[in-house]
Amino acid sequence: MIGKSTIKLIKSLALKKFRIKENLFLVEGDKIVSEVLDSDYLVEKLFVTNSYLISNKEKCKKARLFTEVSPSDIKKASQLKNPQNCLALCRIPAKSDHPNNLGNNLSIYLDDIQNPGNLGTIIRICDWFNVEYLFLSPKTVDCYMPKVIQASMGSFCRIKILTIGFEQLADFAAESDIPIYGAFLEGNNVYREMLPQRAILVMGNEGNGIQKEVEKKINKKIKIPEISLNAKRAESLNVSVATAIICSEFKRQLFS
Amino acid sequence: MIGKSTIKLIKSLALKKFRIKENLFLVEGDKIVSEVLDSDYLVEKLFVTNSYLISNKEKCKKARLFTEVSPSDIKKASQLKNPQNCLALCRIPAKSDHPNNLGNNLSIYLDDIQNPGNLGTIIRICDWFNVEYLFLSPKTVDCYMPKVIQASMGSFCRIKILTIGFEQLADFAAESDIPIYGAFLEGNNVYREMLPQRAILVMGNEGNGIQKEVEKKINKKIKIPEISLNAKRAESLNVSVATAIICSEFKRQLFS
Repeated sequence: MIGKSTIKLIKSLALKKFRIKENLFLVEGDKIVSEVLDSDYLVEKLFVTNSYLISNKEKCKKARLFTEVSPSDIKKASQLKNPQNCLALCRIPAKSDHPNNLGNNLSIYLDDIQNPGNLGTIIRICDWFNVEYLFLSPKTVDCYMPKVIQASMGSFCRIKILTIGFEQLADFAAESDIPIYGAFLEGNNVYREMLPQRAILVMGNEGNGIQKEVEKKINKKIKIPEISLNAKRAESLNVSVATAIICSEFKRQLFS
Repeated sequence: MIGKSTIKLIKSLALKKFRIKENLFLVEGDKIVSEVLDSDYLVEKLFVTNSYLISNKEKCKKARLFTEVSPSDIKKASQLKNPQNCLALCRIPAKSDHPNNLGNNLSIYLDDIQNPGNLGTIIRICDWFNVEYLFLSPKTVDCYMPKVIQASMGSFCRIKILTIGFEQLADFAAESDIPIYGAFLEGNNVYREMLPQRAILVMGNEGNGIQKEVEKKINKKIKIPEISLNAKRAESLNVSVATAIICSEFKRQLFS
């Protein structure tokens, strides 16, 4: 059984102030919990049903504390529409706000992304395309929000995510001679650019795009050319979709 | 004011059986409603606040019936978290289940996509990349579901969407000598394929991929190569993200 106060704690983790206070975040879903148990994250408390326990006994021992509970207990505590067989409370790692170096690959900077589904999807894209760092502006949605974690499908376990102000990052990139690209509705056709292996790509907020202050320090503006010949057509692409297309183009040029 | 029975009607349109019974679907949001008013869709009833009406008087006259209501009325009827200034009930057009011809461009077939956000995002991608037809398998989520309409951001007004069984489509494609591509986790590297201007691209269900029966009739299997060198990495990309990347590659080869 999951006690009332624990259920209250779990529910409270939907809000950032309680995640900060408790220094914990919530992970749900059999597959994602299995991935977090295999990762460097510290799982403080794990609640599992018997069916999960039977197939994952060794894995469960990796948690500091694990408790077998009934499916209806999971349901009571869950924030999912379709609760599964486990639920983990994980420690938020100490923040390092400066990478040791920017590596040799593409990194991404998100300038105030607000939608948790978008952030989660972008984390998954970074995992697929081997993006080095995912940098978040201080106003970007918190990456430990349950909806972000769920949308990332476990990829949050493998991606280096850092919150950093753009100014600091731009200085660091300049020192290391790394070009900063930005995605705009007006810019050079990304398909016709010679894209380098090592770069930072800036993606802007869903409604407002990249901030003026950030734009000033961008070395190269790129766009995904619209193909539709209609005067009336989609004005933009969803930011996670645009991130995917541009990442794909960086990697295509490198590997094909 | 919006009468109680109308509010009940609007709420009922969340469910497919009521959309079919009433032959209506719901469109919300100032921008999307403006786009639907400019489109060929018949807007049966339109509810607008004074502020929307002032800026869009001529547009509002395009609806069969428009009524000025208070923001709190919109709020009562809305299915959005942040209701805006208008709400339209539109007629579902008569279905044509067979296109006259398959055109000269890329078309897409969705094999049982279940998530309304994914379908809406794919509709927006089709609009951006000038996809000719978007074919939906009979079990794909209904394109008139409010969440699909909202996620498509008005692009549903411009895209030709048809529900059709795959067998029928495949026969039609064979007659017209159009190759059928399918996205798989194993297949030819899409970056290294010579992609034609005219093709049908099949994208599979979120959890299960492309059905075996459908797979048999696919002429060419393609994949987006994973770049990550980690043994542990994202197992797949979200289907709307994968659709975007493959569409982008078809169009890049054509236009750059």
